Amino acid sequence: MSTTIDLNCDLGEGFGPWEMGNDAAMIKLATSVNVACGFHAGDADIMHRTVKLAKARGVSVGAHPGFRDLHGFGRRPVPGITAAEIENLVAYQVGALQAVAALAGYQVTHVKAHGALSNVACEDDMTARAIAAAIKAVDRNLVFVVLASSKLASAGEAAGLTLAHEVFADRAYEDDATLVSRKKPGAVLHDPELIAERVLRMVQHGSVVTVTGKEIKLRADTVCIHGDTDGAIEIARQLRQRLQQAGVTVAPFARP
Amino acid sequence: MSTTIDLNCDLGEGFGPWEMGNDAAMIKLATSVNVACGFHAGDADIMHRTVKLAKARGVSVGAHPGFRDLHGFGRRPVPGITAAEIENLVAYQVGALQAVAALAGYQVTHVKAHGALSNVACEDDMTARAIAAAIKAVDRNLVFVVLASSKLASAGEAAGLTLAHEVFADRAYEDDATLVSRKKPGAVLHDPELIAERVLRMVQHGSVVTVTGKEIKLRADTVCIHGDTDGAIEIARQLRQRLQQAGVTVAPFARP
Amino acid sequence: MSTTIDLNCDLGEGFGPWEMGNDAAMIKLATSVNVACGFHAGDADIMHRTVKLAKARGVSVGAHPGFRDLHGFGRRPVPGITAAEIENLVAYQVGALQAVAALAGYQVTHVKAHGALSNVACEDDMTARAIAAAIKAVDRNLVFVVLASSKLASAGEAAGLTLAHEVFADRAYEDDATLVSRKKPGAVLHDPELIAERVLRMVQHGSVVTVTGKEIKLRADTVCIHGDTDGAIEIARQLRQRLQQAGVTVAPFARP
Amino acid sequence: MSTTIDLNCDLGEGFGPWEMGNDAAMIKLATSVNVACGFHAGDADIMHRTVKLAKARGVSVGAHPGFRDLHGFGRRPVPGITAAEIENLVAYQVGALQAVAALAGYQVTHVKAHGALSNVACEDDMTARAIAAAIKAVDRNLVFVVLASSKLASAGEAAGLTLAHEVFADRAYEDDATLVSRKKPGAVLHDPELIAERVLRMVQHGSVVTVTGKEIKLRADTVCIHGDTDGAIEIARQLRQRLQQAGVTVAPFARP
Repeated sequence: MSTTIDLNCDLGEGFGPWEMGNDAAMIKLATSVNVACGFHAGDADIMHRTVKLAKARGVSVGAHPGFRDLHGFGRRPVPGITAAEIENLVAYQVGALQAVAALAGYQVTHVKAHGALSNVACEDDMTARAIAAAIKAVDRNLVFVVLASSKLASAGEAAGLTLAHEVFADRAYEDDATLVSRKKPGAVLHDPELIAERVLRMVQHGSVVTVTGKEIKLRADTVCIHGDTDGAIEIARQLRQRLQQAGVTVAPFARP
Repeated sequence: MSTTIDLNCDLGEGFGPWEMGNDAAMIKLATSVNVACGFHAGDADIMHRTVKLAKARGVSVGAHPGFRDLHGFGRRPVPGITAAEIENLVAYQVGALQAVAALAGYQVTHVKAHGALSNVACEDDMTARAIAAAIKAVDRNLVFVVLASSKLASAGEAAGLTLAHEVFADRAYEDDATLVSRKKPGAVLHDPELIAERVLRMVQHGSVVTVTGKEIKLRADTVCIHGDTDGAIEIARQLRQRLQQAGVTVAPFARP
Repeated sequence: MSTTIDLNCDLGEGFGPWEMGNDAAMIKLATSVNVACGFHAGDADIMHRTVKLAKARGVSVGAHPGFRDLHGFGRRPVPGITAAEIENLVAYQVGALQAVAALAGYQVTHVKAHGALSNVACEDDMTARAIAAAIKAVDRNLVFVVLASSKLASAGEAAGLTLAHEVFADRAYEDDATLVSRKKPGAVLHDPELIAERVLRMVQHGSVVTVTGKEIKLRADTVCIHGDTDGAIEIARQLRQRLQQAGVTVAPFARP
Repeated sequence: MSTTIDLNCDLGEGFGPWEMGNDAAMIKLATSVNVACGFHAGDADIMHRTVKLAKARGVSVGAHPGFRDLHGFGRRPVPGITAAEIENLVAYQVGALQAVAALAGYQVTHVKAHGALSNVACEDDMTARAIAAAIKAVDRNLVFVVLASSKLASAGEAAGLTLAHEVFADRAYEDDATLVSRKKPGAVLHDPELIAERVLRMVQHGSVVTVTGKEIKLRADTVCIHGDTDGAIEIARQLRQRLQQAGVTVAPFARP
């Protein structure tokens, strides 16, 4: 029975003059943040500002590498991209953030793939292994945030990386511990109270009740929270509060 | 009297489907290369390929950060850019190359500013200090390649970085050890033999004869060679040969 | 004494997943809009959406070309850019919007330079003439929106283009009809009522009282309004209301 | 029996400081050129220069729109892109070239889709119709260059556009008039003499002998030539010569 859990959130997703999300609100709720590294969002200035913000609040910082696709926000797969090209773009982005973090007097603790890069890697072993290989080559002490039961998890394990298993507070699970597709009804949960109770069970019992009503084991090191809507922020706020009320320590899975 | 000299060259200046220069020829003549890091040229794949090439030949690899300006190849100053923004973009690019080099099983030894970033920094203390600060924060063991008598040199020294003084084989010098402006007649030398003799003197005597005919002291750790034309490659080839014939060791100023 | 005035506003300044400003509010207040064309902001999809929005409300659409600088939002001058390069980038952007407008079943009526391109052109004749030349070559019926007493105005006149003189509702004027620099105190006005009265005088009397208290002539075809803050939107709302109460027709200076 | 044929070639495929192909050689061999419009290659300056070059030689100019993908040169499909988004990007690029051509005192006569946009459209009706719809909306007099027997051809016909059927000099054909996949042996022809004879038959007899040895009808309005290698240029040179020797008029399918 775990008594500690991390809350992770994507941050620094603006670009140049544009902003996205509510970083100021989320930095108060998350215990670790995934920082966009300039390929699908983010730039050197935003990265520096975001790391500074995280450092000031004692929040851990991870790299959030994505495909080279500013216009599409890294949400589109890149057909035909090779394993070597994926290794290169992941290494590039992780290294860029490490250096910017060093400039801000802080350190990168983890890596979590963004958008289509993550979605593809969850199902494609070649992509998952390429990401893991890049992380390992750049810094084998970086924690690899992976979706449970995905190719990311198996590739990370095969590479010998330290893994942080990520669960989703507001998503329904299939019996094999994969997420219910967003296309299916009931895939996304909306009731803040229900969501909080659900995560509490994940943390305290290491299990979740699936769409079929079955209780399955589910390792939870970190919960993905997001701040794209006021509703999402409220869900995260109640979740954090409920966890703390129940005596769970909300803290980073890794510290700089 | 120095008996060792480095020959440095900019490499990996393509982007996506486009190539520039003759990397295959230059990698055989240079002892260290400055790799474009994706802002004015280069991308993660080209960087990886270039580092592999350098590693295979035992050539040292440095980062060659420039302004964010692919379309203008980093040759245009960026009006109004702040010191903090320069620190961020230099750190970002250096870190990106360090990680890509790690992926290629190699290490970055130095940093040399590119194009307008370098030109501005040679005369503007704020810019020069920002570059030096970024290098120092990312990795204080990186050698900083600087033009003698420039603000880059004084900023690098003030930051406590190890400096490599760069001289230009084919450029005339003023009495204060700065380069004669390209706008003036006689600013660029073209005779390969004369150029080689001139560099030999720099290496063996630590001096150069200026446009006014005066002999001044000039520290030479590395000579900038380039391969944009067949003539330039031939100049580099004769230079390297002449130096070796005279018993000078042509070798990197720093090794990974 | 004019009884008609146009209110113009920059629109469509997002990029890919990012939004900027409050287009939904401003489209109800403006009678013509200047659409970003992809160089400093905007993309083909946003342009199409913005034109559709304008068409639905009978608002005129103009091109708002800027320097190629997404990251800096076109706010930085481009040192060393040639007149020919400015002609090319203005023509490119105007043509792109014309075609996207045609696809949306609408027509472009005018051109207004954005950010640094406009600022430079207001004082630099070469730049101003290049913009005017590009507009003339692409479509000599396009109205050229210019700041009164600027190089843009003289270049537009010399090119034989139809001009729309733009005034600023919330800016103080010098005796020579140029804007008081933002660096000086009193350069920007904040009282919505005062601003509305001031514009009313410009429209009805063709004059403005300058910082020195002198009343000077000022031709006003269009007033620049903006929606970057709630305060700015409120100013625009009161302005439009005041003008209409006073019997002024608020309408585009040109219709498709 | 046709006695006139056009030779078309992709031109202006550089970007900023980078060049691609041998435009100087190809402009002497082609009778119409397809100009990259800034999304996969090309920029306003290169476009202007290319149009000037074409105008000086009386060669027709077409737009060559591609996906937004500079780094991948528009060779990768964009998963999930909508018909509306394709319409927008085609319109944008065609309009941009029209305006740059106007600036150069010339006119755009045709449109040919580039790379993955073309490949996808050849087989996907939605994409093909979107391209045709954009062309029609921007200027219904533009000729639409299409691969025979492809979805591009049927979509162009359905839209009521004037079509130019394109054949490939150096590619083998299947019995249904589609190109033999490059993955199959014999897909690409290399003998310049054989290639020239083959095209001559297409032009004079409106037919081609397929991989199975069958002679099928094939309408040929324009032949695609390219200049990426010295061999390709030589093939184009011999082709043009052979056609002219046989009394065929080599001329644009449309004139400005």
